[in-house]
Amino acid sequence: MLPVGEDALDEGFELDPAFVEDVAAALRADDKPWARSLVSDLHYADMADLLERLDREDRRLLVEAIRDDFNADVLPELAADVRDEVMDALGFEDFATALTELDSDDAVYVAGKLDAAERDQVLARMPQATRALIEHGLSYAESSAGRLMQRELVAVPNYWTVGETIDYLRSTRTTPDKFHAIFVVDPRHRPQGVVELHRVLTSKRPVKMADIVDPEIDVIPVDMDREEVAFLFRQRNFSAAPVADKSGRLIGQITIDDVVDVIDEEAGQDILKFAGVRATDESSLYRSIMSTAQSRFLWLFINLGTAFLASSVIGIFESSIEKLSALAVLMPICASMGGNAGTQTLATVVRALATRDLNASNALRIAWKEIFVGLINGFLFAAITGAIAYLWFKDPLLAIVIASAMIINLIAAGFAGIAIPLVLDRWGADPADSAVVFLTTVTDVVGFFSFLGLATWIML
Amino acid sequence: MLPVGEDALDEGFELDPAFVEDVAAALRADDKPWARSLVSDLHYADMADLLERLDREDRRLLVEAIRDDFNADVLPELAADVRDEVMDALGFEDFATALTELDSDDAVYVAGKLDAAERDQVLARMPQATRALIEHGLSYAESSAGRLMQRELVAVPNYWTVGETIDYLRSTRTTPDKFHAIFVVDPRHRPQGVVELHRVLTSKRPVKMADIVDPEIDVIPVDMDREEVAFLFRQRNFSAAPVADKSGRLIGQITIDDVVDVIDEEAGQDILKFAGVRATDESSLYRSIMSTAQSRFLWLFINLGTAFLASSVIGIFESSIEKLSALAVLMPICASMGGNAGTQTLATVVRALATRDLNASNALRIAWKEIFVGLINGFLFAAITGAIAYLWFKDPLLAIVIASAMIINLIAAGFAGIAIPLVLDRWGADPADSAVVFLTTVTDVVGFFSFLGLATWIML
Repeated sequence: MLPVGEDALDEGFELDPAFVEDVAAALRADDKPWARSLVSDLHYADMADLLERLDREDRRLLVEAIRDDFNADVLPELAADVRDEVMDALGFEDFATALTELDSDDAVYVAGKLDAAERDQVLARMPQATRALIEHGLSYAESSAGRLMQRELVAVPNYWTVGETIDYLRSTRTTPDKFHAIFVVDPRHRPQGVVELHRVLTSKRPVKMADIVDPEIDVIPVDMDREEVAFLFRQRNFSAAPVADKSGRLIGQITIDDVVDVIDEEAGQDILKFAGVRATDESSLYRSIMSTAQSRFLWLFINLGTAFLASSVIGIFESSIEKLSALAVLMPICASMGGNAGTQTLATVVRALATRDLNASNALRIAWKEIFVGLINGFLFAAITGAIAYLWFKDPLLAIVIASAMIINLIAAGFAGIAIPLVLDRWGADPADSAVVFLTTVTDVVGFFSFLGLATWIML
Repeated sequence: MLPVGEDALDEGFELDPAFVEDVAAALRADDKPWARSLVSDLHYADMADLLERLDREDRRLLVEAIRDDFNADVLPELAADVRDEVMDALGFEDFATALTELDSDDAVYVAGKLDAAERDQVLARMPQATRALIEHGLSYAESSAGRLMQRELVAVPNYWTVGETIDYLRSTRTTPDKFHAIFVVDPRHRPQGVVELHRVLTSKRPVKMADIVDPEIDVIPVDMDREEVAFLFRQRNFSAAPVADKSGRLIGQITIDDVVDVIDEEAGQDILKFAGVRATDESSLYRSIMSTAQSRFLWLFINLGTAFLASSVIGIFESSIEKLSALAVLMPICASMGGNAGTQTLATVVRALATRDLNASNALRIAWKEIFVGLINGFLFAAITGAIAYLWFKDPLLAIVIASAMIINLIAAGFAGIAIPLVLDRWGADPADSAVVFLTTVTDVVGFFSFLGLATWIML
C-alpha cells in the first residue's frame, strides 16, 4: 500500500498525475476503502483539484466514497461545472448540510453560482438561520462588497482596553476560526476603527483599543463594487476592512484572501475576454463540448461579419486585382501588421485601465504617444516591407504603394488601439470584452482600402 | 485654500483629475508651500499615483517640493520609468537614504529594478549593514522566493509559552512595524511551525507555542519560483510562511501582500505578452515614445515574417487568382476565422496552465475536446459562409470550396491552439509569450492553402 497522502503532491505542491491515476484505479476497482485511504490526508484545495482532474464517472465514484466525511471547504474551490456534478452526486440534502458548515462568504459564493431552481432546492433543506443569512447575502449585487464580505468577525466596544479584549478572546468560544483584525465599534455598532492583531500583542494591557486603531483603514460601503474594493486593498495594503450598511452599522468584514480571489479572477478573465471567450466562470476547461462550442459561437459569428466586411472592401477593387494579381498576393500584409500593432496598443491600454494607471488626467498624452509610436514603426516597416516587395516583384511603384499603406495603417492602428477601449470604458462597457473586434475591423478595412486604393490610383 | 487632502480622492478612492491639476498649477506657479500643503495628507500609494500622472517637468518640481519629508514607501509603488526620474530628481544620496528606510523586501525590489551602474552608485551611499542585506537579497534569482521575502520577522523558541511570547512582544522594540504571524524555531533556528496571531490571542498564557502551530503551513525553500509560491499561498490560504535556506535555517518570511503583487503582475503580464508587448515592467504606460516603439518592434518584425509566409502561399496560386478574381475577395475569410477560433482555444489553455488546471492528467482529454469544438463550429460556419458565398457569387462550387476550407481550418485551429502552448510549456518556454505568432502562422498558411488549393483542384 502507498504511504497515504505522501506521494499525492509533486515538489511544486501540485497533484502528481500518477497519484490521480492511483485514485482512479482504486475507484474503478470498486475499492472504496483504498480510495478513501489514499485521499484521507489531502488538503481541501488539493481534493478540489483531484475532483476536477478525474473524469465524470470517476468523480461521481469519489464523491460516493468520501460522502461520510466530505469536507465542505472543497466546494468553493471547485470550477462551477464540476461543482454542479458534485452536487448531483451528493444530493441536495448532503449539499445543503455542507453549505451550512461553510463561512458565510463562502456559502453565499457557492449558492450564488447555482441555478435558481437548484438554489431553492438547496436552501429549502437548510436550517432557518443559515438560510436567512445566505438569502441576505444573495440580496446584494453580484459584484458588490456585500457578496464578498464575511459576517463572522470580532468586534469590541470602543471603551475596552487591550487587557479586556484579550480576556474576552480567551474566554469565549464564539470567535471565528480565523481572524486577522479586531473591529472597534461605538454603542450603535458603527465601526470606529480596525486594530490589527500585532498591535494588540505589542500593546500593554491598560491601553485603550480605540487608541491603537489603524487610522488608514476605511469603512467599505456594502454596495461598493468589488473591483473598487480590490483596488483599495491593493493601494492601502489592508489585511481586513469593515463593511457597513447604509445606516453605518458594521455588518461584516472583507479580508485580503477574498481580495486575492477577485484580483486573480478579474485579471484572468481579461485575457479570455480579449481572445473572445465568454468568461462566465473562472475556468471553462471543464465545460462540455457542446456548451464550449456554443459559448464561442457568438464571437466567431461577429468575426465572420467583420471578415465579410473586409472582403467587400476587396470586392470594390476586384477589377484592379484582375489586372495585377500581385496585389492579391501582397494585400494581407498591411492588414495583418495593423491588426498586430493595434492589439499591442489595445492590450497596454486595457491593462492600464484595469490597474487605474490610465484616466482622464493622462489619456490625451498617452493617445499622442501611441500615435507617434505608430508613426515611427510605420516608417520602419514601410521601408522593410517596401524593400521586400520590390525584390519580389521588381516594381518600384508597388513598393511605394505598400510602404505608404503600411504607414497609414500603423497610425490608424495606434489611434484605434487607444480610442476604442477609452470610448468603451466611457460608455460603461468592458474594454477588454469587445475591443478586438472593433480594432481588427478598423485595421482590416483601412489596411485593404489604403493598399488597394493607392494601387488603383497610382498604378492602374 | 482647499481643504487639504480632502478633495484629493474621488468616491472610488482614486486620485481626482481636478486635484492633479491643482497640484500641477501650484508647482508651475512655483508655490512650493501650497503644493506641499495640498499633498501633505496623501497616502503613499496615492502620492505614487500623483507622481505617475504628472508630466516629466511637474514630477521633478514635486519631488523638489517634498524632498525634505519624502516618504520612502512611495518608491516601490512607482512604475520603473517614473521611479528612475524620481531618483534623478532626488539624487543618489537622498535616494539611498530613502531605500534604507524601507523594509528589506521593498528595498531589494527597488534596488533590483535599477541599472547596474545606478545600483552601484546608490549602494555605495548606504550604511554597510543595510547594503549587505540588500546585496544578499539581490544574490537570489529574480523570480525566486528569496527576492520576495522580508528579513524582518518575529521568531520565538519552541519551548516558550503564549504568556512568555506576549511579555516579550510587549517589552521589545525590535519587532517589525507589522507582522501577521509568529515563527517557532528550534535551537538551531530551523522553523518548527507558524502561529497565526489569532491563535496567540485566543490561547491561555500557559499554552506552549509549539502546540498551537498551524500544521498546514509549509516551509518555503529560498530558491522556490515565485509563481509556485503564489500557487501555494492561494491553494492553502496562507497569510505568512517561513523561508528557509539550504541548511534549513529560517532566514525570512513571505506574506500575503507580496503574493498579491505577484498574482497581479503575472496575470497582468499574460495579456500583454499575449498581445506581443514585452512586459519587462508592470506597466509600460510611462515609457518614452522611442523606447515603446523599440520594445514593440521585434514582435511586429516576427509578424511581418509570418505575413510574408502567408503571402508566399498565396503566390503559389497567383495564376488561379488571375483566372478567378473572386478567390482574392474571399480568401481572407477562412484565414481570419481560423486565427480567431485558435486564439480562443489558446487563451483558454494559457489561462488553464497559469492556474494549473491543465496538466498531464487531463491534457489529452482537453485536446480531443478542443478538436471536437473546432469540428462543430467548423460545420456551422461552413454552412453559413458557404451560403453567403453562394448568394454573393452564385457559384455552387465556390461555396463548397470555402465551406470545406472553413472546416479544415477550424479543426487545425483547435489542434494548434492546444498543441502549441503545451509544447512551449513542456520546453520550459512561456506559453503566453510567443504562442500567438505560431498559431496565426498555422491558421494563415492552412487557411490560404486549403481555400486556394481546393479551388485550384476542384474549380480550375
